[in-house]
Formats: sequence, structure tokens, C-alpha cells
Amino acid sequence: MRTYIDRRLRWLIAAVVAMLFSTTDAIAASGAGSEEIFLALGWIVVVLLAARIGSAIERLGQPPVLGEILAGIVLSGVAMAGVHWLEPMRTSVVMKFLAEVGTIVLLFQIGLESNVEQFRKVGMRAFIVGTVGVFFPFIGGILVGQYLFPEQSINAHIFLGATLTATSVGISVRVFRDLGVGARPEVSIILGAAVIDDVLGVVILAVVQGLVTTGVFDWWNVAIIIGKSLIFLIGAIVVGGRIAPLLARWMAYLSNSTTMKFAVPTAFCFLLSYIAYIDDLAPIIGAFGAGLILDQVYFNIYRAPEIVEKIEHEVLPYVGEPSRTRLVEILDQYRLHHIEELIQPLAYFFVPMFFVMTGFSVDLRTFTSLHVLWAGMLITAVAVAGKLVTGFVAGRVHRSIVGWGMVPRGEVGLIFASVGLGLGVVTAEEYSAIMVMVMTTTLMTPLVLSWLLRRKTPAM
Amino acid sequence: MRTYIDRRLRWLIAAVVAMLFSTTDAIAASGAGSEEIFLALGWIVVVLLAARIGSAIERLGQPPVLGEILAGIVLSGVAMAGVHWLEPMRTSVVMKFLAEVGTIVLLFQIGLESNVEQFRKVGMRAFIVGTVGVFFPFIGGILVGQYLFPEQSINAHIFLGATLTATSVGISVRVFRDLGVGARPEVSIILGAAVIDDVLGVVILAVVQGLVTTGVFDWWNVAIIIGKSLIFLIGAIVVGGRIAPLLARWMAYLSNSTTMKFAVPTAFCFLLSYIAYIDDLAPIIGAFGAGLILDQVYFNIYRAPEIVEKIEHEVLPYVGEPSRTRLVEILDQYRLHHIEELIQPLAYFFVPMFFVMTGFSVDLRTFTSLHVLWAGMLITAVAVAGKLVTGFVAGRVHRSIVGWGMVPRGEVGLIFASVGLGLGVVTAEEYSAIMVMVMTTTLMTPLVLSWLLRRKTPAM
Repeated sequence: MRTYIDRRLRWLIAAVVAMLFSTTDAIAASGAGSEEIFLALGWIVVVLLAARIGSAIERLGQPPVLGEILAGIVLSGVAMAGVHWLEPMRTSVVMKFLAEVGTIVLLFQIGLESNVEQFRKVGMRAFIVGTVGVFFPFIGGILVGQYLFPEQSINAHIFLGATLTATSVGISVRVFRDLGVGARPEVSIILGAAVIDDVLGVVILAVVQGLVTTGVFDWWNVAIIIGKSLIFLIGAIVVGGRIAPLLARWMAYLSNSTTMKFAVPTAFCFLLSYIAYIDDLAPIIGAFGAGLILDQVYFNIYRAPEIVEKIEHEVLPYVGEPSRTRLVEILDQYRLHHIEELIQPLAYFFVPMFFVMTGFSVDLRTFTSLHVLWAGMLITAVAVAGKLVTGFVAGRVHRSIVGWGMVPRGEVGLIFASVGLGLGVVTAEEYSAIMVMVMTTTLMTPLVLSWLLRRKTPAM
Repeated sequence: MRTYIDRRLRWLIAAVVAMLFSTTDAIAASGAGSEEIFLALGWIVVVLLAARIGSAIERLGQPPVLGEILAGIVLSGVAMAGVHWLEPMRTSVVMKFLAEVGTIVLLFQIGLESNVEQFRKVGMRAFIVGTVGVFFPFIGGILVGQYLFPEQSINAHIFLGATLTATSVGISVRVFRDLGVGARPEVSIILGAAVIDDVLGVVILAVVQGLVTTGVFDWWNVAIIIGKSLIFLIGAIVVGGRIAPLLARWMAYLSNSTTMKFAVPTAFCFLLSYIAYIDDLAPIIGAFGAGLILDQVYFNIYRAPEIVEKIEHEVLPYVGEPSRTRLVEILDQYRLHHIEELIQPLAYFFVPMFFVMTGFSVDLRTFTSLHVLWAGMLITAVAVAGKLVTGFVAGRVHRSIVGWGMVPRGEVGLIFASVGLGLGVVTAEEYSAIMVMVMTTTLMTPLVLSWLLRRKTPAM
């Protein structure tokens, strides 16, 4: 009892000291935008801790990612409830950047863990799944738009359909990672299909935007977009696959330090993300490709981490069987995972930023209008059904897992919606309903997927 | 010969493909400030690779940090020579943020490596060194200002003096780290003195700013600033030292995963950086304090990394002497360094951002005016001499190492100068001369320090 009071007192002292420090002017405030830089230091503390507290949801058998998103939603509520210090986080370029890097690092890791061969094997199926997963939600979105908002133009309905096309693959993929089943064929199919629906989504947006602004369907523009996407996918993988080992070898020639081992793959990941961006694709596609390429070429070039080398040279020769075999096994495992180990702390830092910020972007007030809620639920139903259909064309895998893996919608849908809002074809009400759809699919997917996977995967 | 051409051809193909991708509009461009986010992905590639190429200067016996700064200067030249894509990096909030986090992570590492006891031992000496190192450059700056710019007011000279006070400790500390002599008593003295001169610098700036704007010397303001700094230094270390273990234990109760092991110290580092900032101190002081605190409390709470546990349980019991002793030694070493290992990749990512951006902020055109150059050289001489004096009050350590460790001036000096520019007491010419001083001291220090350390430290 005594220690408990003691502990609370200490926290109180801490809180009071923190209050004392609540002025913020002088040095750092000079220079453009620099206040945001320093505020972000505080936000990072809140996001990192909120993510870890939220992920304790694991104890209730739920995937940590759900806890991170919920922690973000709670923070959003806290900000609205009067903690104004958190409010500017919504528009902060720095926080958006950290969240973006979070998705990049996550997809890079997935790429590193993925096997190119397996990915090639599912290529055709992923293409079909992606195409079907764009077609049905698009058509479904147009129809539900006509039913819900009959007073609006056909262009508005087409826009609504477009917002339902792109999968926010980061959320599903995180669930697979959390449960340690990242190597399942369903994951490759979902990732491949997400690349396809991202490309198709960009094409649709360009077409719809052209339709709304010029009233003309521009075939030429569509051809250019498809062409650029193809150049990226083939170019990045073929050319990148050739450059990466050369670059790594040249860098290894400059120095074989761990710094270099870290910098080359990281720079390569950001390079492909950037090339994807200037090619009008989502940067995460580039990051995923970078991981896929490096997975193959990297291990032949660099040496093992220090602890492995030390034990190998100084201890292993004197160890007898059967411990020797086990020791070699442990060391080899560790040697192979070294790049992942080097990247992992970046993931610890950046990945929660994305999921907490996803939750933070939720506007709880959306839930107060009944018509918005109703429209949101109906759109969600169409969004879910439209992607579940894809399971039937995925071949001999677990259909529901593929289907649900494609369900989450995220930032791409919201970006489409905000473009529509800017053009005046999407109303504020419709935007809120789309927001409800994004939230619902984001929160449902981890729950359903982890339930499906636990039911179907034999316990470890 | 054939492979050489082959290799060049591949690079050519890569370059052409990259050119093809040079349009940048569609999706990503929507949303406020988001273009910067995606451009930054490309800048990160350039900065990471430039840093690694620059650090190959190590082969010539020079410290890597010098190579990173030089790489930044080269990039700055490249940007001015017509690669406009790099130009917005100068004002990018995201890049400034990455550089700031770079200094924070670096000082956090130094704190983790520092020994609190050793730091306490040098406390008084650090205080004297810091005070002397503010006094002489301040007076020297006023005098050289009167000589160089006699037409200006005394306030302008006082401002020039103020810009010479604050040490940019990151550069010296990096040299010590690069050479593996971070545990020398000189390092503790320099770090302690840098805290003191940062506090004094803030006090002087507040006083000078008050003098210029109101014409009155405000004792009350000075007292508040000194009080707040004291509260931070004592509060952070005493209260922080009590909270950190509680927080860590509570977090460990939620989950004992590596994610948690990473998140708690990282969040604590950012928290203390942020508190330092709202207390009008440099965030790096908070980061250093966080490292110092965690160094003591952390190891008792968390378990060893996986590889250590595996080998310990499955192999160690079956290993005979003398290999057993050696294995235990290697494992213990690795266990102790686990937090540093977890933070290290963050350092690989963020730290080069700071040093390359420091080089990148150099405006090469500064060197074209003879009067500016002359003024810059004279101010540099005063800046160097004013800090070298501190070696004589540092007690029984290597005097020149302490003195030179205090020489580099960086962003704080430039911030002071830009405040003066804003108030109209510092002229554009004077600002350029201060820039020359910052550049010269930044580039000289690594050279001189590594020479001094190599001469005095017995070869490993």
C-alpha cells in the first residue's frame, strides 16, 4: 500500500514539473516551420507510447495493429476533448511524412520476407484477383450511389465507385506478420492484387477526373498511365535486380562496415519508393519491389554480424556434438536474418506512426448524423462484398482470407474522395460516409482475418 | 574489360529508365504539403548515399564525419550548379526534422555510453570550462566587431559576441565516437561544458534581445531563464531517474517484446528532448540526459536478446572449458549492448542527415567577397582562441583536446545571427562572415581533433 502511494506521488511530481515547463518561445521558434519540428518531438513520444499501450490488446487475443489504430482513435478523441496541443498533429507535414515512411518500411520488410519465386507463381492469379477486386466495388459503388444520393450526377456516383477500388494492403499484411504467417500464398496474392488495383485505381481516377473537368473520355491519357505503370513494374524489377548487386558491391568496396550494410538496402528501398511516386504509383509498391529484389541478391555480398563471427571463430571449433549442430543452426538463422534485424528498429520507430495516425485521422463526430451512418454502412457492405468476391477467382487457396485481405480501404480512398470534394462532385455528407467506410473496413479486417487465420492455421 | 563496359551499359540503362519516370503529378500531389513528403523520399536516398561515399574519406585517415559534411557541401554545389531538384531541400521542414532527430539520436547514444559517475566527477570542471568558454569568445567577439565594423552600434557587436558562445558539440563528439575514445574524461568535460554554454548562450540572447528591443536590461527575465534551466537539469535527472524505471517496469508488464524494449527508451529520449525544448534549452541536452539516466536503470529490467537466450539455454550447458568462459564473455558483452544495438540503426538512418545537411547549408558564394572572407577569418581566429583558453582550466586532462572539442560552432550560432538579422542589428555582410566562421570551425575540428587523438592515444 505504501509503495503504491509513493508511486502515485512520484507521478504527481513528474506532472507538476512538466507543467512548469509549459512555455515555448525563444531560440527554437525562429526559422520557418521550425516550431512544428520541435512539437513533433513531443508527438512522437505520445504516438510511440500510445501504440505500445494499444498493442496490449494482444492479451485479449486481438492483433496489435487493431490496438494501435484504436489508440489513435482515442488520441483523436482526447485532442477534440480539449487537449489542443495534439490538434496540429492532424495537418503536420512531419507526422504525415513519418506515417508514409512507416508504410514504406513495412512493405519493404514484407518484400524482404517474400519469396520471388512464390510471387511469380501467383502472378496470374494476383492479376485476376486485383482486376475483379476493382470491377465489383466500382460497379457496386456506382449503384449504391444512385440509390443513396439519387439527386446527384452520374459523375458523383462514378467517383464514389472509384473510392472503393484501392486496397490499403498495409493493414492486412500487418495482421499476417503479427500472426507469423507472412509466407502463406494468400499473402503473395493479396500483395500482387494490391499492386494491380493501385494501378487500375490511378487509371480510373485519371479517367474520372478528365470526365468531370473536360467532359471528354481521354484514351491517350489512359494509355500513358498504363504504359508508365508497366515500365515501372518491369523496369524496376529487371533493371533494379541488375543494379542492386552492383551498387552493393561497389559500396562494399568502399567500406564493409555495418553502416554500409544498413545504408545500401535502405537507400535502395527509398529509391524505388521515390521512382514509384514519380511514376504516379503508390511509393509502397516501390518499397515492396525493393525488398523483393534485395531478398535475392543481398546475402551473397556481406559478411555475418559480429557476434556470429566471434562465436564461429573462437568457440565453435571446440564444441562437440550434438551441441555443435544446434549452435551452427542458431548462428545460421541469425546470419540470414541480419538485414531484417538491421531494418527492424526502423520499423519499430516508423510503423506505429502510420497505424496510430490512421486512427487519429478518424473524426468521431462523423457518427452523429443518422443518414451519414446509414449511407456509410451501406457503402461498407458494398465495399466488403465487392472484395470478398475476389476469393472465388483466387484458385486453390483459402478464399475468405484472400477476400478479407483485400477489404481494408485507407488513404487512397480518402485521397480520391478529397479530390472529388475539391472538384465539387463529392458532397460533405458523402465524404463523411466514405470516412465511415474506411474506418469500418480498417477496424473489421484485423478482427476477421485473425479469427480466420487462427481457425485455419494449426497451433504452433 | 568486357565486364567493365557491360557494367557501364547497365548504369546507362538505369539512368534512361530513371529519366522516363520524370513526371510527377496525380495522386500524391493532392493534400497540403504532401509533395514535400514524397520529394523527401528521393532526398533521403541522395543524403544516405552521399554520406556513405563521403565517409570513405576514412581510407585517407580522416574522420568519417568530415567526409559527410564535405559530401553535403558538394551536394550544395551540385544544387547551385543547376540540379534544381535538390534546391527545396534547403527549406524543407521534413529534412530539418530528420537532421534534428539525427542530433538527438547521436546525443542519446553518447548519453547511453557515458558513465554518470564519471560525469559527476568532472561536474565542477565542466562548469568552469563552460563559463570560461562563453566569457572569452563573447568579449573577443565584441572587440573584433568594433575593429571590423566600427560604423555599427555596440548592440551589433554584442550580438556578434553572442554568436560565438555556443559550442556545436555534436561534431566533436562524433569524432570521439568514430575513433572509439568516447569514454575519455575530456569527452565528459566537453559535454558538461556544452550544457553550460548552451544555458549561458540562451541567457545572453535573451538579455541582448531585450537590450535591442526595449533598451532596458531586464534582470527578472534573466532570473527566470536561469531558474528554468536549473529546474530542467535537476528535475530531469532526479525526477526522470525515478520515473524511467517505473515506466519501463509498467511497460514490461504490458509486454516484454522487443518492440517494447525499443519503444520505451526511444520515447523517453524524445520526451526529455521535448521537455528541454519547452524549457528553452537545446533538445539535444534532453536527449543526452535521457541516455545518461537509462544507462543506469535499464539493464535490470529487460531480458537478453533472443540469440543470447537460445545459446545460453541450448548450447552453453554442454560446452567445456576454456571455450565456455569465452562464450559467456561474448554473450554478456552482447547482452549489455542490446539497447545500443536496438538504437544503432536509428543512428545509421538519422545521424548522417544532420551532418550532410550541415554541409548542404553552406553557401559557397560566401567565399567570393574579400572583405567577408577577411572578416570571417578574423572572427574564426577569435572563436578558436576563445575556446582554446578553456583547456587551461580543465584540470589534469589533455588541454588541447578539451579546447578543440569546444571549438565547433553550428546551428545555435547561426540562429543567433539570424535573430540579429531579423532585428536589424546584424548586417548581411556580418552574417556571411559568421557563416564563414561556422564553416571553418566545423571543418577544422575533425581534422585537428583526430590528429591530436591519434598522436596521444596508443595504437590499438
